[in-house]
Amino acid sequence: MTDLLITDVRPLGGPAADLLLRGGRIAALGAGLAAEVPDAPRLEGRGRLLLPGLVEPHTHADKTLWGLPWRPHGAGDTLESLIQNERRVLAATATPTIERAAGLLRQMARLGTTAVRCHVDVHPEAGVASVEALLRLKQDLAHLLDLQLVAFPQQGLLIRPGTYELMDEALRLGVETVGGLDPCGIEQDPVRHLEAVFGLAVKHGRGVDIHLHDLGTQGLWQVGRIVDFTARHGLEGRVMISHAFCLGSAHWDQVAPLAERLARHGVAIMTTAPADCPAPPVRQLRAAGVTVCSGNDGIRDAWSPFGNGDQLERALFVALRFDWRRDEDLAVAFDCVSGQAAKALGLDDYGLVPGARGDLLLVAAETLGAAVVERPQARTVIRAGRVVADDGRLVG
Amino acid sequence: MTDLLITDVRPLGGPAADLLLRGGRIAALGAGLAAEVPDAPRLEGRGRLLLPGLVEPHTHADKTLWGLPWRPHGAGDTLESLIQNERRVLAATATPTIERAAGLLRQMARLGTTAVRCHVDVHPEAGVASVEALLRLKQDLAHLLDLQLVAFPQQGLLIRPGTYELMDEALRLGVETVGGLDPCGIEQDPVRHLEAVFGLAVKHGRGVDIHLHDLGTQGLWQVGRIVDFTARHGLEGRVMISHAFCLGSAHWDQVAPLAERLARHGVAIMTTAPADCPAPPVRQLRAAGVTVCSGNDGIRDAWSPFGNGDQLERALFVALRFDWRRDEDLAVAFDCVSGQAAKALGLDDYGLVPGARGDLLLVAAETLGAAVVERPQARTVIRAGRVVADDGRLVG
Repeated sequence: MTDLLITDVRPLGGPAADLLLRGGRIAALGAGLAAEVPDAPRLEGRGRLLLPGLVEPHTHADKTLWGLPWRPHGAGDTLESLIQNERRVLAATATPTIERAAGLLRQMARLGTTAVRCHVDVHPEAGVASVEALLRLKQDLAHLLDLQLVAFPQQGLLIRPGTYELMDEALRLGVETVGGLDPCGIEQDPVRHLEAVFGLAVKHGRGVDIHLHDLGTQGLWQVGRIVDFTARHGLEGRVMISHAFCLGSAHWDQVAPLAERLARHGVAIMTTAPADCPAPPVRQLRAAGVTVCSGNDGIRDAWSPFGNGDQLERALFVALRFDWRRDEDLAVAFDCVSGQAAKALGLDDYGLVPGARGDLLLVAAETLGAAVVERPQARTVIRAGRVVADDGRLVG
Repeated sequence: MTDLLITDVRPLGGPAADLLLRGGRIAALGAGLAAEVPDAPRLEGRGRLLLPGLVEPHTHADKTLWGLPWRPHGAGDTLESLIQNERRVLAATATPTIERAAGLLRQMARLGTTAVRCHVDVHPEAGVASVEALLRLKQDLAHLLDLQLVAFPQQGLLIRPGTYELMDEALRLGVETVGGLDPCGIEQDPVRHLEAVFGLAVKHGRGVDIHLHDLGTQGLWQVGRIVDFTARHGLEGRVMISHAFCLGSAHWDQVAPLAERLARHGVAIMTTAPADCPAPPVRQLRAAGVTVCSGNDGIRDAWSPFGNGDQLERALFVALRFDWRRDEDLAVAFDCVSGQAAKALGLDDYGLVPGARGDLLLVAAETLGAAVVERPQARTVIRAGRVVADDGRLVG
């Protein structure tokens, strides 16, 4: 890979600097680099803000209807109704999974996302077909982003016979993470569910990411059990709980001991920062040492018509959800879609430091806070040291 | 004013039609109009969605820092702290009110807003200077939008001696609406506050718009008193309560009798649909017959760094706040920034019907729901029958 010198950028809104990429990684970041490598190919930063590539820690690209005609939402309000509706909608969708998912992932890439964790449905009707499609995209789109997959038992693991074996197969095929779903609310047998999920993780040497929608004390109890299983199986730093609305529906006095355990055992929390229901208290969880990240969840699919794949917009939603107005709070919102998300996904060579991979975003914004508030669309995206999007459009 | 024929548009996403504007108003809307007026100047709709101009029922353009360098938010969390912080920030801002406000109003106009209600601060330090600036803009920007003003005692009416007289003067100068502010929480004398506010309204023959942040039963009690004063003074249909968080913090059983009274006496509710705190239950209030509209409130000012003046984005925030996913619900969210807002502001010649004023918006979106979700930026805006913005930019 060739070098690339990016001149006159402001890392996270700081003083102007140049950045040298070499072999797809950040070789140097500082003032006056241009003089040291006069012959390197150049990208003019023109004073723009330099950000690390955005990280999407939770989406369902396999089920998106991105790129298809508008489809009126038709599900009821319960989780069961949404799951059943999705089965109907996807069964009636002619466009292949790989095409829909690729469209959405390209949309994310053009907006500066350079790493994505995608939950992929595994169930007896579809087998591992979606997993195979997304594994193919992991290769095909590697020039744009890192794609991590979660084998996700959307229709249940225990309650849908045959799913366990398909999860096992998905992991053998190369999926990185074992998914789970409401051990109480959907599976109705929390311990057996967690035994199955963590059993698969141990068997394949993988991490775990569990959707937990269950509310109240029942939800909190399950958070505790997920931490137990994490500790028991030595999976510290490799487990995430997605949504965890329950952490936002209880008094902090009740949540604090759980937060301490989440932090101690390296269990991360993912929230979309929903406006309509309780959300995990991001500030307090962070203060307790918990890794908290934020993602878009499903985008334009049978679950909801919302979403555009923009992680800067998701950061804005985090800030709005908690009424964070100060620059330092807007920086925390940004951290939820960058550094914290990278940590939750185990991307240990991430960031604006020498040695980190050259996944970067340039936006015309005065400050980091302004970038979150304004979400400029004309972005320049660098992936592994190469410009992959300019003016908000994919190049090449 | 010349005619204008807009061809091939889809009103609110319905079947393709043409629209004829004559004398600044909608003369006809239907299929095949092009053949009837072959010589009229034409605007090619190209199959775009036709919407009525957006209506902003609540903003504070006089206090925006729009167009100025990014300013880190520096206030504390209490209402008092925010008010004091604002005094400091605005005192230190060299750019004149008229310039800042004009910048924001132009931003709103380019995004399709054709009517705005702006609360304008009135207090002894500044006198009616901001009112005079906004009255000037009402004239200067009349080609872009209708500007309605509210004389707003941001620092209190009773507790800031001299403010009553300034409000009186503002109304004599031509301000349409009498503002009020937390009769209990800020003014500490609810009945005298309402006597002053409604007294000014009766004296000048104007409407009323009261900021009510107070929560819980105290807030609900004040809603009841505002309805009392509305009925007593025969101001049905001319009173709005802005924010009214209290309506969202109580059980509907407690709110329902108030909703019935709000509807009966024509007292409208304005909400920003905040993600971080209780919001008036829009669906239930509408079902009870209450006019409920949604606005942006302050934009990029000393209160918060948020906002871009886009009423389509505000409609999205309404939908997200209540988890409205269905097309009919997205249409309700749109109604909050269009028809309901127009009704609350007394714009009785509004809408996509013959005779209505020719304030229109064209966007490239498949459906009304898609327009709310996607918020396309390349908008064509027609004001009083003339194109004032194209491709999201003001023309001429």
